[in-house]
Amino acid sequence: MGLCYARAMRDGRLGVGTDAMEAALAAARAAAARGEVPVGAVVVGPGGAVLAAAGNDVEAGCDAAAHAELIAMRAAAARLESARLSECDLVVTLEPCAMCAAAAGLFRVRRIVFGAYDPKGGGVEHGARVFATSPHIHQPEIVGGVREAECAALLRAFFAERRSSPKR
Amino acid sequence: MGLCYARAMRDGRLGVGTDAMEAALAAARAAAARGEVPVGAVVVGPGGAVLAAAGNDVEAGCDAAAHAELIAMRAAAARLESARLSECDLVVTLEPCAMCAAAAGLFRVRRIVFGAYDPKGGGVEHGARVFATSPHIHQPEIVGGVREAECAALLRAFFAERRSSPKR
Repeated sequence: MGLCYARAMRDGRLGVGTDAMEAALAAARAAAARGEVPVGAVVVGPGGAVLAAAGNDVEAGCDAAAHAELIAMRAAAARLESARLSECDLVVTLEPCAMCAAAAGLFRVRRIVFGAYDPKGGGVEHGARVFATSPHIHQPEIVGGVREAECAALLRAFFAERRSSPKR
Repeated sequence: MGLCYARAMRDGRLGVGTDAMEAALAAARAAAARGEVPVGAVVVGPGGAVLAAAGNDVEAGCDAAAHAELIAMRAAAARLESARLSECDLVVTLEPCAMCAAAAGLFRVRRIVFGAYDPKGGGVEHGARVFATSPHIHQPEIVGGVREAECAALLRAFFAERRSSPKR
């Protein structure tokens, strides 16, 4: 699927800047440096510009809902002064959970592009499978597995280090 | 289900203050007065005190994720300085959507009490049925149909008035 996505990007069919996942990965790395689970997300506007980028911020903000995707979508909507992100893409390093997937539906994003699959916490291809199970919700196009290995490696390294560190 | 809930409350088994749904209804009415879809939510702490109350704030804030439940849970978590609301109940006038239901799982709320059922937009008993379909998510106790008629009437009146008003 990553290959198809790359080809579509090369053909200009997807309209997502080729550096969008790179920006999401950078946000994920910054989150890891803050002790947050390394997930990063960006919202790409109609012209291909990154409207907002964010990493997870759960620990610092005492906010279980402070997932990268939700922060980035809210910031992009605030920037556009519109609760709809109809011409925008959400690009995120990990398969969104059910909360973020449903939020993307509410924000009416055009497309969700994600990196690693998340069999336990994901809500797009796993678990609640929000779009498949919710006929009345806005249905973004879904592209999974983009730069999957890098996105997954970041998470694996974070959790491996956390397990090996002495408990605080 | 409303009757069972009333009995459980009388017996002190639920630990939710009897006025919690009244507070949620008040927040919903206030939302309607601001032109928002009238949904209200409160988070009730372990001692029965209302930790946070909120109504929908989608239109004013240009934020499709500004549902009453999410605002109230974030506010309660900030107040407790904890991303977990383990001993808290979420009391809301309408069946939560998939986003808010999944968020309640992330915040690990003890119980979700809701008023009206929402066959189109709900994500607990309808659509994504988040808890039933997500075995790895925290599973709050679910109590639906509390003061259902009042909660539903508020929504019906709001949409009837909106339909009959001249378009702005």
